[in-house]
Amino acid sequence: MKGSVSLLLCLFLIVFTSCKKEEKHADNVIVEVSNSTLERVEPPHWWIGFKNTKLQLLVKEDGISEAKPEISYSGVSIEKVSKGTSPNYLFIDVNIAEHTKAGKFDIVFTFENGTKKKHTYELKAREKSADEYVGFNSSDAVYLITPDRFANGDTSNDEFASLKEKKLDRKHDYGRHGGDITGITHHLDYINDMGFTAIWPTPLLINDMPESSYHGYAITDFYQVDPRFGTLEEYKNLSSEMKKKGMKLIMDQVANHCGLEHWWMKDLPFNDWVNNQKNYEDNIDNWTWEKNINSNHRRTTNQDLYASESDKKGFSEGWFVAAMPDLNQRNPFMAKYIIQNSIWWIETLQLGGIRQDTYPYPDKNFMSDWSGAIMEEYPNFSIVGEEWSLNPLLIRYWQKGADNKDGYESHLTSVMDFPMQSNIVQALKEEESWDKGLVKIYEGLANDFAYADPEKLMIFPDNHDMDRIFTQLNEDLTLTKMALSYMLTIPRVPQIYYGTEVLIQNTAKPHDHGLIRTDFPGGWEGDKTNAFTGEGLNTDQKEMQSFLKKVLNHRKNSKAIHEGKTIHFAPFMNTYFLFRVTNDETVVLILNKNDKPITIDLKRYAEIEVSGKQLKNIVTGESMTWGDDIKLDKKGCLLLTTKL
Amino acid sequence: MKGSVSLLLCLFLIVFTSCKKEEKHADNVIVEVSNSTLERVEPPHWWIGFKNTKLQLLVKEDGISEAKPEISYSGVSIEKVSKGTSPNYLFIDVNIAEHTKAGKFDIVFTFENGTKKKHTYELKAREKSADEYVGFNSSDAVYLITPDRFANGDTSNDEFASLKEKKLDRKHDYGRHGGDITGITHHLDYINDMGFTAIWPTPLLINDMPESSYHGYAITDFYQVDPRFGTLEEYKNLSSEMKKKGMKLIMDQVANHCGLEHWWMKDLPFNDWVNNQKNYEDNIDNWTWEKNINSNHRRTTNQDLYASESDKKGFSEGWFVAAMPDLNQRNPFMAKYIIQNSIWWIETLQLGGIRQDTYPYPDKNFMSDWSGAIMEEYPNFSIVGEEWSLNPLLIRYWQKGADNKDGYESHLTSVMDFPMQSNIVQALKEEESWDKGLVKIYEGLANDFAYADPEKLMIFPDNHDMDRIFTQLNEDLTLTKMALSYMLTIPRVPQIYYGTEVLIQNTAKPHDHGLIRTDFPGGWEGDKTNAFTGEGLNTDQKEMQSFLKKVLNHRKNSKAIHEGKTIHFAPFMNTYFLFRVTNDETVVLILNKNDKPITIDLKRYAEIEVSGKQLKNIVTGESMTWGDDIKLDKKGCLLLTTKL
Repeated sequence: MKGSVSLLLCLFLIVFTSCKKEEKHADNVIVEVSNSTLERVEPPHWWIGFKNTKLQLLVKEDGISEAKPEISYSGVSIEKVSKGTSPNYLFIDVNIAEHTKAGKFDIVFTFENGTKKKHTYELKAREKSADEYVGFNSSDAVYLITPDRFANGDTSNDEFASLKEKKLDRKHDYGRHGGDITGITHHLDYINDMGFTAIWPTPLLINDMPESSYHGYAITDFYQVDPRFGTLEEYKNLSSEMKKKGMKLIMDQVANHCGLEHWWMKDLPFNDWVNNQKNYEDNIDNWTWEKNINSNHRRTTNQDLYASESDKKGFSEGWFVAAMPDLNQRNPFMAKYIIQNSIWWIETLQLGGIRQDTYPYPDKNFMSDWSGAIMEEYPNFSIVGEEWSLNPLLIRYWQKGADNKDGYESHLTSVMDFPMQSNIVQALKEEESWDKGLVKIYEGLANDFAYADPEKLMIFPDNHDMDRIFTQLNEDLTLTKMALSYMLTIPRVPQIYYGTEVLIQNTAKPHDHGLIRTDFPGGWEGDKTNAFTGEGLNTDQKEMQSFLKKVLNHRKNSKAIHEGKTIHFAPFMNTYFLFRVTNDETVVLILNKNDKPITIDLKRYAEIEVSGKQLKNIVTGESMTWGDDIKLDKKGCLLLTTKL
Repeated sequence: MKGSVSLLLCLFLIVFTSCKKEEKHADNVIVEVSNSTLERVEPPHWWIGFKNTKLQLLVKEDGISEAKPEISYSGVSIEKVSKGTSPNYLFIDVNIAEHTKAGKFDIVFTFENGTKKKHTYELKAREKSADEYVGFNSSDAVYLITPDRFANGDTSNDEFASLKEKKLDRKHDYGRHGGDITGITHHLDYINDMGFTAIWPTPLLINDMPESSYHGYAITDFYQVDPRFGTLEEYKNLSSEMKKKGMKLIMDQVANHCGLEHWWMKDLPFNDWVNNQKNYEDNIDNWTWEKNINSNHRRTTNQDLYASESDKKGFSEGWFVAAMPDLNQRNPFMAKYIIQNSIWWIETLQLGGIRQDTYPYPDKNFMSDWSGAIMEEYPNFSIVGEEWSLNPLLIRYWQKGADNKDGYESHLTSVMDFPMQSNIVQALKEEESWDKGLVKIYEGLANDFAYADPEKLMIFPDNHDMDRIFTQLNEDLTLTKMALSYMLTIPRVPQIYYGTEVLIQNTAKPHDHGLIRTDFPGGWEGDKTNAFTGEGLNTDQKEMQSFLKKVLNHRKNSKAIHEGKTIHFAPFMNTYFLFRVTNDETVVLILNKNDKPITIDLKRYAEIEVSGKQLKNIVTGESMTWGDDIKLDKKGCLLLTTKL
């Protein structure tokens, strides 16, 4: 493919040079120029002041490939024009010189028959400096929201006749329930008061899919907000309201695939725009699950020195599911499209981070370029990738700074810590023995030695794809508190799924995504239970909400938890002690799995130097002195601080 | 301690200088010198020609600490003399200058009262160059033997009245059974014919312990062969007989601990010669298990960034068991003692490798020095460490070349691959599903990307501490063959425990060490079954023996298996295909878990380029052509080669 692009480029340069000459004559004559908007020019606008001065525009318009584009704006020059295999696309490589001023200019397209069309393009000034984009880190606690299921803040946007999934259906687990951006914005105080400092909503871009469009991962236009979630202005407003509260907005992005109903699927710009494209095009009129070439989902092929070429290809080029065409990031135009799209959203929404879906599935060299391009523009930014593996070796591989033997350089600051999530749940559920129970967290956390930046990894009790933590822990309130207290104390970025604070569970249907993404109580008018006000919550729900609020709010200002030294002790008598220490504060977490009262001699913990000090129970507010021993009355967690 | 040693050194230098002056006078007078051998001078002799020209002699003799040693031999100089805390030890640091000649010389000790004692010491010439010590590697297959249980080649050495465990008791699983070095030597042809190229006998040094002395890991003199196993000459003879057959002898060494009855335990040279020494000395007359300060056995404390100091100390300084005092390698005299002991045995036995017991337990910085010192002297040597962990991160950490974040530099060429052993057994026992069964070996082997040198790791179906593989696999002959064929084909150094070839099992008593170390049939006169001759073996035993012999003998000359490119394919229809490829040979291993006949389309494996080629079944000798598909009749392994 590269060869044919080069050939096209040569042809264009010849044509383009002569074209320029015509322009000179044209200065003195009135030219017929259509003002009509082209079908698409993407990114819709851009900014001045990036380190990378290059911009590639995708232009879509019937027959546009024959047209010659021109720009006349100081500092902006067209460096290259490329055709696709479809006649209806043109890709324009533009350079924006360093001192270019913000402003609008026309791109004039001259067709072979002399017709001209023009498109007004804008270069905006950036609202803040690159350094000010500070991503999430271990001082944050992230609230993960499935927006369709959190709160319906605007009932006027629930249904659109123009969209393929037309109706709201709150009774249907996989239907749209009406939650939206305004619903989140309206409840920012609640989220902030709970002690969360960042929000990660699952994707809010349009999924104009005939069914299950609520989840957001089948994007059909990478530059459009789903109208059922709201408008771009509402999304920007959410961001600015969060900014006022010092909160960070994390965008859930998808580089691996789009939705089958993505606008370009009817007229693909190149014959390798998506993977297994021929198979798709051959079957386009009668596309079924069976006809799809699915990914083999063998994620180790990314690292495996012995993986066969056919397995590697089968993993990376297979479609995630038949409803989600697999983008071919090895096509350099696709690659630029995705990178620019990510940057466009960072600037537009003033993001505080990106969560990248299905991280190992796209071409891994592209993902290095993608994360590298973002981190190059925003050195303080954060990106977390989803590698759903319990193998720390794989998690390790993707984090920036891992010394990978194959030379692979990732620029991901954070990876989802699935191994530790699993260790924590096992540790709490298993009966204690030499190699079971609490030792799973002790030895699991010990694996941190192998990570480039363990404290940047994201830990979570569950997420939108997993059983709710309350279900995972057999609806045991005490165990759930133990899990949460641990995740909020270890050196990690914790992420908690909406509704965990009121014990949302999916016990009736394990692994059922629809049920996992249950409506947040109080998010809909008429809800009998309202977790925002506390109305109708049962005792356990209130206890958990209050517990989490106290722990999160302490965590918010605890440098010991954010960046303190971590010291833990091998499990002993069914207990486990973890300490986070700075000069100003020591935080003590004790997990105790004994049902009966037990007294622990504290001599063993002498090196922590809290002996004789006053400590406060972060949850109850009670004071105690760290003496010779400690009596633990019953199973549970004890979270203490020397900050009184 | 360091301080007091320096002080002693200063005193000595003063005394020593004046002493030298006396020597000059002494030249002309006859001095009374005792020829009686000192109690101990260790190492008993040394060699010229090492890169490291330093040698530290441990001298043990009543009141020796007050004596002044002198040496008069061209090239040999005393650099430092150090006392311990016991008056009965002296440590002499000697330098052996580069061109020193082999020969004998006297070390003359002058006591304060003028008495002199002399000890004749020898520096030998080295029998071969350092480069010629080539350690085991992936071209080898190692036969692991528990010598007491393999063959009683010399019944005259079965019992010694002078030893604490006086009697042979073949009926007792934990008693001595009489196997010995001669038993191994007599059966070298059998081992060689089977296709093994290296032997690792568990420790043969003296364990003069009152019970369970047979296993060898409670060494009571690091320079003496256990007389029940034979003499030093017999050990050297075993090595030279093996050399004639091109086989490598691996010595099992123990740097972590000694036996409680070690000679120095009654009079320890320093007050920190062993860990928790005070506790031991306080209780020496009534020493019980309860009084011992056991290791906490939390091996992750070696790597864990968050491990408490008390846990680290509790791991490294605790005793393995009460019968095995924990050597303190942080005492620099102990450190030198162990390193020199290892080198002494390499030279004495012309070793082809060392297996180091309980690798993570000794002080890890010492283990770096130890392995570094050996590899510095013998650049082509091999050492395998036992880290009994299923966590590849820990295995990875210990292998030379791992880029450890904490800067830890190991010089171990090989580590026991417990994770892969476990994966293989799980893979075979589990029912096939998306994430169970054969995928465990597929994904397990994929972890090789994280190792510095995966092909140098040692794989094994079991060892002397684990259930026999036949027991692990529920006495399923087919599964056992599958496990063995896999281990003998992947890029590893395979190690197989004696008797695996005749299906020794310990099913009656899982985890029972005594039973695991069952007598090899035919190793004792009068044995009804004789695996050496085949007499009395049942059909399954014969089949396994023949199977292993064929696979091992093919492996012996298969560069494809030794160093070929490895390619494997994700499990498919309950089958798994692995290929080892060089220009000259392709080896194909197919593991098939289908009970019923199945036909596999071979298109998927096209990249291996064996299509249309003739292949030979390594086990049956049958020929076949690699066509469009392959029919697999029943569960099992198929091992094919293009080398006809």
